[in-house]
Amino acid sequence: MSELDLIRAIRRWSSNDLIGDDCAILAPPRGRQLLVTTDMLVDDVHFSLATHSAYDCGWKALARGLSDIAAMGGDPHWCFVSLALTPSTDRKWLTAFYRGLGALAKGHNVSLAGGDLTRSDRLSADICVIGSTPKGRALTRFGAQADDILYVTGTLGAVAASGYTLRPQPRLDLGIELRRLRATACMDISDGLALDLHRLALASGLSASLDEIPVAPGASMEQALGGGEDYELLFSLPPGKRPPRSAIRIGSLFGGKPGKIRLHGRPLSVRGWDPFAHIDRRHRV
Amino acid sequence: MSELDLIRAIRRWSSNDLIGDDCAILAPPRGRQLLVTTDMLVDDVHFSLATHSAYDCGWKALARGLSDIAAMGGDPHWCFVSLALTPSTDRKWLTAFYRGLGALAKGHNVSLAGGDLTRSDRLSADICVIGSTPKGRALTRFGAQADDILYVTGTLGAVAASGYTLRPQPRLDLGIELRRLRATACMDISDGLALDLHRLALASGLSASLDEIPVAPGASMEQALGGGEDYELLFSLPPGKRPPRSAIRIGSLFGGKPGKIRLHGRPLSVRGWDPFAHIDRRHRV
Repeated sequence: MSELDLIRAIRRWSSNDLIGDDCAILAPPRGRQLLVTTDMLVDDVHFSLATHSAYDCGWKALARGLSDIAAMGGDPHWCFVSLALTPSTDRKWLTAFYRGLGALAKGHNVSLAGGDLTRSDRLSADICVIGSTPKGRALTRFGAQADDILYVTGTLGAVAASGYTLRPQPRLDLGIELRRLRATACMDISDGLALDLHRLALASGLSASLDEIPVAPGASMEQALGGGEDYELLFSLPPGKRPPRSAIRIGSLFGGKPGKIRLHGRPLSVRGWDPFAHIDRRHRV
Repeated sequence: MSELDLIRAIRRWSSNDLIGDDCAILAPPRGRQLLVTTDMLVDDVHFSLATHSAYDCGWKALARGLSDIAAMGGDPHWCFVSLALTPSTDRKWLTAFYRGLGALAKGHNVSLAGGDLTRSDRLSADICVIGSTPKGRALTRFGAQADDILYVTGTLGAVAASGYTLRPQPRLDLGIELRRLRATACMDISDGLALDLHRLALASGLSASLDEIPVAPGASMEQALGGGEDYELLFSLPPGKRPPRSAIRIGSLFGGKPGKIRLHGRPLSVRGWDPFAHIDRRHRV
């Protein structure tokens, strides 16, 4: 299959006749801000060709990007897929990858608008998703105030307990509900509650106190705190403000050392995904 | 260096305080269309860590994306960089990569607005560039008409002749000039004149006739036709319309078999970059 053949096939999988030109041409939604996120997935780091079907790889690649849009309270519009294929990637794998990605995209009115294809000896996929919110209404990590209450949108650890084979569901509807509720801070839990809460608290200049960890059925406390890839949303609301019906209260924020977390009153070490533990610490920034 | 440390460093290299949040928040330019392009570069495919400095890798990664914006006649605005780093990538390499990318970005008023970092055993970089044009004014590959004259913006083959170590200069100013001139079709020559002209002619449903190949000093005809990575623009204008001063006339388009090319009256085989020659032809689309 040549690159021109591949582009022809992908054009059929997408709704965009312009795929194959140098850029995609998009009409930005009027009166809104754009949200842009990119996420790179690498074989044997974020998924494994040995345990994940091509359909699941496609689903998962897009789910990560959509979850970032959900975390900002955004509506998703377009996605772009850059793929580095290996000599053993065949048309069957590629078709199933785009079917998995396409199924999730269709469920959220997202168009595949472009991308790039190349080769490598390690399969990887970089997904760019573009969404939008009304001006000034995007949810961020840094807006939380002392005494705000912390919530998550669901139980945690199920994806880790499944060996990361569960298909994650990005919480786009809840993100939009939280934007309308004016949540003070929001992010998605991609790397585990402990590390992601540390990031939210650090960005908001606050400490966090956890009273309850909503562990998913079949998962361990370790998996709920550090497993990651659940793609539930972690958010804060001012005390007294009613959260969405499915939200679970997990604790609160206070004016202590930025980024510090206590669980049942005791310091919690930050655990979770860090792909750069290997980079020489003598070169710390 | 941890991921949080890296993000802190990259935030300093960029102008965007929001780097580190789930998405970048961008104000789309009013009354314009967006242009979006993604380009993935892989070590030993598009560059080589053995022969390219980190600075040149960063420059080259962005140059490819900017050239796609130039090809559509666009003004570039933001870039996003997803990097898969290997265990041997150190802070010095990373800093130089962002310095090279940043030098080119600054010269064209492009902001580094976000990205992703992960690890792999093969270094790769995926660059997304977002630009814009006035509505309905983007240049495409498919608008050429029979009898239009073909031009390129400069001589070809110099980058191949240098062993791909020359720093390419994306032709953004010329792209904007061609948009104002209402060029009928335009694209960048990333994969060699023969293959890229084949693509433009195919998209426009025409044949092409080449009278002259502007071979760069020190380059061979083979390098000019199939070397690629010069990032000059290939474009068409109606007969009688005056091209930019630096443009070189190379031939014309006519109503023959779509995508067919003749050089001095004889059929020219399509040569150039195809990363998918390895994919089994029995699975042709």
